[in-house]
Parts: sequence; C-alpha cells; structure tokens
Amino acid sequence: MQHLRGGGDVMALKEETLEVGKKLVALCKEGKNLEAIDNLYADEIESFEAMAMPDGSTESKGKKAVRDKNVWWFEHMKVHSTQSEGPYPNGDRFAVRFKYDATDKDSGKRETMEEVGLYTVKNGKIVREEFFASA
Amino acid sequence: MQHLRGGGDVMALKEETLEVGKKLVALCKEGKNLEAIDNLYADEIESFEAMAMPDGSTESKGKKAVRDKNVWWFEHMKVHSTQSEGPYPNGDRFAVRFKYDATDKDSGKRETMEEVGLYTVKNGKIVREEFFASA
Repeated sequence: MQHLRGGGDVMALKEETLEVGKKLVALCKEGKNLEAIDNLYADEIESFEAMAMPDGSTESKGKKAVRDKNVWWFEHMKVHSTQSEGPYPNGDRFAVRFKYDATDKDSGKRETMEEVGLYTVKNGKIVREEFFASA
Repeated sequence: MQHLRGGGDVMALKEETLEVGKKLVALCKEGKNLEAIDNLYADEIESFEAMAMPDGSTESKGKKAVRDKNVWWFEHMKVHSTQSEGPYPNGDRFAVRFKYDATDKDSGKRETMEEVGLYTVKNGKIVREEFFASA
C-alpha cells in the first residue's frame, strides 16, 4: 500500500528505482548485459521468460543461473543491433523496451525481436526480472 | 505456479491473453480507448498510474472511474499522433508500448510521452492495468 507510506519514503523509492534503471539501460545499450547482471542484480534474482529456454523452463533463480542464460544467448546469437529504451519507473519497478536484430547462429535465421523487461528493485538491487515478448 | 498446470491450460491461458491484447492494441491504434474499456475491461478493473492524476491519486478502481480518467485525459490533451506496439504476452499478462505526441490544452505545452502498459487478463477480461512511464 504505497499511498500509506510517508511522502519521503515514496520519493526515495522512486529515486532508487530510477537510478538502477538508468544504469541497466546504459549498460544494455553498450551490450554490457553481463556487467549489468554482475553489478545490479541481487544474488537471489528471480527471472521469468516469456518463452521457454532450451531446457524447457521459463524460470531461473539465482545470479549464476541468470548469468549462464545470458552467456548462452550471446553465444548462440549474432547480434546486429539492439535498442534499449527506458527506464520507465513506477514505485519499486521499472520497464525497459528492447528490440534486437539478431541471427541464430545454428539456423542462420535472422529476425527482429521485441521485448519488454519488467524489473523489481529492492535495497538497490534487481531482485526480479520478467519478460514480455511477441508470440 | 504456472509450471504446475497442465500444458493445455497454459496454452489456453496464453491464447486468451494474446487475443485480448490484440483487440486492445487494435482499438488503441484507432484512438478507440473508451471502446476498449467498455468492451475489454472487467467491472472490477484496478488501474495503477505511474504519475498522479489531478486529484493526487495514482489508483483507480472500477470501470467507471477508469473510464472517467480516460475521458478527462482526452478532453485535456490534443493528441497529434499515437503509437501502440504489442501485445507482448507472458502467461495471463501482456505489455503494450505506447508513444503519444500531444499538447496539453491548458498549458499549450507539446510533448512526446512514452509509456509501457501492463495488463492482467482473467476470464477473458482485463482486471488490472499498470503503467510505467519516464519520469
């Protein structure tokens, strides 16, 4: 019940969310997604994908699992260009809009992917990420 | 715990979410936001804005309150163009990316606004909308 908190707390919460969001977007724009995970993610990060990973799961828990998933993706995709727009904050969460132009190295298929990432911040770290993507 | 459901249920859920999302985006693209509320929103809709409305609140409950908020917005803004991209589904939720080029009729200030809307679908109707916007 955010509206029951004191105004100062709400403002501090917003500032923290916005600051983490700006750092994430800046790093993603430079392709430094792994650095973003290392620096901005909490150890207990929970990650929810829109589409299943190769092992069939959509959920990952813990910094190592999330990092491994990203390493896998970058190893299997040749990324031609990315767009990262945001952050768009609300309370302790912020959204980011991603577009990727990338080729699957295995299939050779090149496509444009659109995605919205929704991030939850707690004590200055990202504790949850959820992805929404076109089917 | 979506991963504990049967596969058929998960697929049906995704289809329903996607279908409602496509209808919402199509109506928003035509500027028929009120028609989207009338047809796609549940009576018990809960709405959470990123920025406070004129009365200072960020939350609205019930179809009438949400509709009134939209009527107010369209009365106070001259909309030059809008972009609605998506839907980007995941489970029972979908995201939409909005961009508005609009002028505040009172102040005469024209600006581009970017926003991500996150919608929750239940029994074929939108029961929750949450907005994320640049500060």
